[in-house]
Amino acid sequence: MKNLNVGLIGGGFMGKAHSLAYSAMPMFFWPAPAMPVRHTIAEATDDLAAEAARRFGFEKSTADWRKVIEDPQIDVVDIATPNHLHAEIAIAAAQAGKHIICEKPLARTGEESKAMYDAVKDAGIVHMVAFNYRRTPAVALAKKYIEEGAIGRILNFRGTYLQDWSADPNSPLSWRFQKSVAGSGALGDIATHVIDMARYLVGEFASVNSILSTWIPDRPLQSGGADALGNVRGGDGPRGEVDVDDEVMTMVRFANGAVGSIEATRNGWGRNNFITFEIHGTEGSIVFNYERRDELQVCFANDGDDRRGFRTVYTGPAHPYGSGLWPIPALGIGYGETKIIEAHDFFKAIAEGTSVSPNFADGYQTALIDDAIVASAEKDAWVDVPRVAELAD
Amino acid sequence: MKNLNVGLIGGGFMGKAHSLAYSAMPMFFWPAPAMPVRHTIAEATDDLAAEAARRFGFEKSTADWRKVIEDPQIDVVDIATPNHLHAEIAIAAAQAGKHIICEKPLARTGEESKAMYDAVKDAGIVHMVAFNYRRTPAVALAKKYIEEGAIGRILNFRGTYLQDWSADPNSPLSWRFQKSVAGSGALGDIATHVIDMARYLVGEFASVNSILSTWIPDRPLQSGGADALGNVRGGDGPRGEVDVDDEVMTMVRFANGAVGSIEATRNGWGRNNFITFEIHGTEGSIVFNYERRDELQVCFANDGDDRRGFRTVYTGPAHPYGSGLWPIPALGIGYGETKIIEAHDFFKAIAEGTSVSPNFADGYQTALIDDAIVASAEKDAWVDVPRVAELAD
Amino acid sequence: MKNLNVGLIGGGFMGKAHSLAYSAMPMFFWPAPAMPVRHTIAEATDDLAAEAARRFGFEKSTADWRKVIEDPQIDVVDIATPNHLHAEIAIAAAQAGKHIICEKPLARTGEESKAMYDAVKDAGIVHMVAFNYRRTPAVALAKKYIEEGAIGRILNFRGTYLQDWSADPNSPLSWRFQKSVAGSGALGDIATHVIDMARYLVGEFASVNSILSTWIPDRPLQSGGADALGNVRGGDGPRGEVDVDDEVMTMVRFANGAVGSIEATRNGWGRNNFITFEIHGTEGSIVFNYERRDELQVCFANDGDDRRGFRTVYTGPAHPYGSGLWPIPALGIGYGETKIIEAHDFFKAIAEGTSVSPNFADGYQTALIDDAIVASAEKDAWVDVPRVAELAD
Amino acid sequence: MKNLNVGLIGGGFMGKAHSLAYSAMPMFFWPAPAMPVRHTIAEATDDLAAEAARRFGFEKSTADWRKVIEDPQIDVVDIATPNHLHAEIAIAAAQAGKHIICEKPLARTGEESKAMYDAVKDAGIVHMVAFNYRRTPAVALAKKYIEEGAIGRILNFRGTYLQDWSADPNSPLSWRFQKSVAGSGALGDIATHVIDMARYLVGEFASVNSILSTWIPDRPLQSGGADALGNVRGGDGPRGEVDVDDEVMTMVRFANGAVGSIEATRNGWGRNNFITFEIHGTEGSIVFNYERRDELQVCFANDGDDRRGFRTVYTGPAHPYGSGLWPIPALGIGYGETKIIEAHDFFKAIAEGTSVSPNFADGYQTALIDDAIVASAEKDAWVDVPRVAELAD
Repeated sequence: MKNLNVGLIGGGFMGKAHSLAYSAMPMFFWPAPAMPVRHTIAEATDDLAAEAARRFGFEKSTADWRKVIEDPQIDVVDIATPNHLHAEIAIAAAQAGKHIICEKPLARTGEESKAMYDAVKDAGIVHMVAFNYRRTPAVALAKKYIEEGAIGRILNFRGTYLQDWSADPNSPLSWRFQKSVAGSGALGDIATHVIDMARYLVGEFASVNSILSTWIPDRPLQSGGADALGNVRGGDGPRGEVDVDDEVMTMVRFANGAVGSIEATRNGWGRNNFITFEIHGTEGSIVFNYERRDELQVCFANDGDDRRGFRTVYTGPAHPYGSGLWPIPALGIGYGETKIIEAHDFFKAIAEGTSVSPNFADGYQTALIDDAIVASAEKDAWVDVPRVAELAD
Repeated sequence: MKNLNVGLIGGGFMGKAHSLAYSAMPMFFWPAPAMPVRHTIAEATDDLAAEAARRFGFEKSTADWRKVIEDPQIDVVDIATPNHLHAEIAIAAAQAGKHIICEKPLARTGEESKAMYDAVKDAGIVHMVAFNYRRTPAVALAKKYIEEGAIGRILNFRGTYLQDWSADPNSPLSWRFQKSVAGSGALGDIATHVIDMARYLVGEFASVNSILSTWIPDRPLQSGGADALGNVRGGDGPRGEVDVDDEVMTMVRFANGAVGSIEATRNGWGRNNFITFEIHGTEGSIVFNYERRDELQVCFANDGDDRRGFRTVYTGPAHPYGSGLWPIPALGIGYGETKIIEAHDFFKAIAEGTSVSPNFADGYQTALIDDAIVASAEKDAWVDVPRVAELAD
Repeated sequence: MKNLNVGLIGGGFMGKAHSLAYSAMPMFFWPAPAMPVRHTIAEATDDLAAEAARRFGFEKSTADWRKVIEDPQIDVVDIATPNHLHAEIAIAAAQAGKHIICEKPLARTGEESKAMYDAVKDAGIVHMVAFNYRRTPAVALAKKYIEEGAIGRILNFRGTYLQDWSADPNSPLSWRFQKSVAGSGALGDIATHVIDMARYLVGEFASVNSILSTWIPDRPLQSGGADALGNVRGGDGPRGEVDVDDEVMTMVRFANGAVGSIEATRNGWGRNNFITFEIHGTEGSIVFNYERRDELQVCFANDGDDRRGFRTVYTGPAHPYGSGLWPIPALGIGYGETKIIEAHDFFKAIAEGTSVSPNFADGYQTALIDDAIVASAEKDAWVDVPRVAELAD
Repeated sequence: MKNLNVGLIGGGFMGKAHSLAYSAMPMFFWPAPAMPVRHTIAEATDDLAAEAARRFGFEKSTADWRKVIEDPQIDVVDIATPNHLHAEIAIAAAQAGKHIICEKPLARTGEESKAMYDAVKDAGIVHMVAFNYRRTPAVALAKKYIEEGAIGRILNFRGTYLQDWSADPNSPLSWRFQKSVAGSGALGDIATHVIDMARYLVGEFASVNSILSTWIPDRPLQSGGADALGNVRGGDGPRGEVDVDDEVMTMVRFANGAVGSIEATRNGWGRNNFITFEIHGTEGSIVFNYERRDELQVCFANDGDDRRGFRTVYTGPAHPYGSGLWPIPALGIGYGETKIIEAHDFFKAIAEGTSVSPNFADGYQTALIDDAIVASAEKDAWVDVPRVAELAD
């Protein structure tokens, strides 16, 4: 088992999740494909970085992410920053020959994403974009059923990602509401996860037809760069403009003839992390709700008429990734497990010299879909989605 | 309490449901606004009609629906036939001065619907279209919360009506798959119920953008006129073309600025009568699933942060129509109750000389929405929905 | 099809439910085994009886239930009174040669029940006790699976009946809280339904071990005999003693070696008509919740390891009683349907000259179980349950 | 922040869970009360121990757990072995002055537990027994509501722990089926978690009345000591006797007058980790199901009659432990989080020199309850539960 030194850039929510994954991956998947070594973490200042290193178990820290890129001991660069920094860091890391995992969305636009994609292709390194939710064991089980043909030809897909952390008009104007930093709002932040799962489970998008809505036009300015996700109310201070979408609705035509709809909002009171999909095929159906992520519901048409119904399958050792996780179902898949599996598959690809999915081609393709959604909403019309060449049918 | 003589045209599934309603309405709502008398039932032949009279408790029977219209003793005409007969019967009944309740959809097209609407307006009688699902107590409770402002301004609506009774390619080509009889497929048959609830709860539609899909192009020909709803397989005999939609997806812009999506299919394995909606407002959310129709889920933003969540409210005596129904919640609201309430409200309007909703104006408006959905799907574009004059803002 | 004249005694909640059943039964099950004719209804006074006749569709009315018994035109006596009148009426009806359906529990005690049972046996008439919940289609489906051996040998049963209508200390002292009228509290009122289902699905009880609790020792006196089920608060007036149980818990040893537990309360805030059971067998499990009564959950051990889970089966045409009910699942089974099925099976037994279950032997057996539960709670010990002779293994 | 060196004895399922907790605790709770250092891990052989050290991130390894006890650098001993070793190790560790966390159940019997309890009291160290499920945030939220009086006086508790991993008669005879190693079966293994939660939420047990059942009398012998939890079938080889319970049912009288029932089985097909409780109070109810552990259901009696129902509260930053966990609810609480919180509270107690609950007094008390359950089942009678002196009212 080889050691791989990780340089993690960003010590926020995602920095925590990724640190957990590096620490826990060999505990779950043993023997590990390679041993992650938490080598260096970068944060905004020396103090923050030093604290993050202690907290997250890194050997070194730095206030300059370029130091991570330049360090010849670093094998893997992990980009867990706000979106506007992804491209610059990733391109530099690729040029330095590092393997890269980048938080989603890949970048703010298709154009930025293309530059990143081109860079990693040129560099010949292993690259991954962190759409972790497709690695929920229940989602991987859905994929398995579909690949086995257990639900036949797919007719449609309906997906949602509903949250409520920004439903309060006084939740703060974090970077997630600023186009210059985030690129888009609910679209890039959360709808992309559903888009990624739709591509994973159904196939490529042919065209989209969309509505973008901004329900809360301004929010309290936030001191500091914290990403409070609505848990801290903003009070009476000055407010700044929101220039991204609060909600996205889109219809989809898939290249294979299936149809779909996707909706995402961060203003849906009572919904927390309500990532759902329902897929109807000619031979069955699959339903998933991340809020109850240990479970996948599947209906097989060929069950007897007197005993057909959605089966609630709790994922465990008999299901994808089950040998590495917990010994019986429903002990509990949490957010961490999705990241642990992600880290496993990324390290496995590095160790074996293969590629992994979703990678930067996927991230770039998702960005092209995002761009088409924005264009569709602006034009009030169906817009075709261009295809990344290597993903052509 | 006045007696009102009912002439019921059609002794199928809907004839049964309406007969139950007339019989049971005074048992539930007492004193009844007026007493329904099951006077005459019309069916295709004398024998079928006589049998239907015995089964459903009618005093007389006839094989000629015109006899019902012409009978001066009849106060109320109830149209429970396939869709293509609605217009002719309703117009004749209106001209004969009968009060009319007509099964949904009002007719096959907006044009037919307009003729019916014009006729009942001219006649000055009480008219109703039988979108019964909005009378599910939990749906009426949703309306109450919205009217109280309990969830604030409505931002969006997402509704589904998913069934699986036609998912088998060998389920028979009943009239519901023939445009000449039904007008449309899943659109008129089931999506209209969701459209009706969206209008009821959110408001009028401004424009739609839709996809219609026909997944199974032909089905086994059916002997007889029965409406087997897929429970009888069609076997190996000759097959006929399906010329209506199996599935409809539409996005909606409401006149008040809210946005929405509606999806309906009869090919969704594992879904039976999955009529759902989710509504997000600025102060809360409402979620409904008819498959669990005793329940309404509501989330109030102003509940404390440490105890906010969807409340599962079981409807009973404290909720709309509760005084007439069962003495405690969850004894069980079935399909019959929705029809009993419908009959109550219809008879109340007749007794009090008022109008009732949804009436033919609503049915006509829904038909205009249906036409716009069809046009949108043909044009691949947003299509504005015309407004029935009396429903203008 | 023969007509059978029904004399209904009692025009409250149960009178309503039974009237609905007589009216609707032929509408659902056609051809009906026999046609119920709503002949005479008895209530406390002439006026109440006349009003009930109009409301519930009976031809005649009387203030004297003995008139019903004595009327030679009456074929069927339906006892829908408070519990303390069951025995006297049933015995008189049996001696008059009427077929009898009696609301549950059969009587206040085992002793009263025995007298009733002896009377109907001597009379040779058809008798039934109205434990309607076992006729919920999903419960009948559970029975079918068990009889097919689909879940193997039964190991255990856990059942609940939880309500909250008496949780408020100011809900009124209706007859249901008075031992002289009701016999017992939650035990006879609601636990008996679960006991009936346990006997139906698992088998006879060998012994019980119980706790009875009375949480609210007095309640506001109620004017009139109404059965408000807690929906009307009692205010500040004088209060009377509650001398029955609010809650019962019991463990069960079944004769076949299975074990079980049953719990019932009318003081469980948030529970409405929460009749549930969970049964584990050597080859599978079954779970039911009447609050979601269209559904039965079943897990089959021999499903593949990668796709085993509870199937949520919505009952419809493919399931017990389905041919008579609604054309697709989830249109909605309500309380009425359980009573319509009950009426069907009762009339079928009369028409065919057979017996029906649960009958007075079952009602008597359940009363013996109730008595054993009371004795066990008093003695703080396991108590054996005697067996009605005709029910011996 | 002080470092505390941990010596972990046992590298199986629990060794993994605890290692995860030590690694992740500071990532979640920062600043950490003290920094856990994974110092030494003990396993059965040198090779196994060395492998475990690499996998779980420990600095050293040993095949002799006594080396851990004797090492003066070790501050904390973590006992994650099969049950029969708990007492010997814990007593030795206490005598060596180590702080101790011991997996549940504390020991095989009350007697063994008492010896352990006496040892830790004498030693004056911080001790904890790892009933982790009470640290599920939703369970801690239930505790908070109860302490606030939000559901009033507690009337009853019904809890279950249902699994199916041993339902197959060919699942192997692991140590969990051997009384000499495990002490008891479902009782000690899983029912104890429910007993712990009942004590935590309701209070001390006064007496119990129980049934123990062994459904599968023998199982295939297992090679090696692995704890396969039923995922590996045993095949056709020789079988050994099961001398512990497969299922336990008990009724409970609590010291404060509440009543309860608890049921646990490992043979309930379709149930995975179905730890549930339902608590009724005079002012509300609480319902929990660990299989959907992000959620707590609570019903408040004082909600309005037209909007009362169980609230499904997803735990997050506004709830117990929320500041340390994930930034919004439903990102996902897994098994790991319960152990991370447990580690946090244990280290906090050490750092602050306080005690923590559940500790060895609680573990001993639970063992006394277990013993009473066994005695009750043997005697077929209610058995009083003795009280550990320091837990007296």
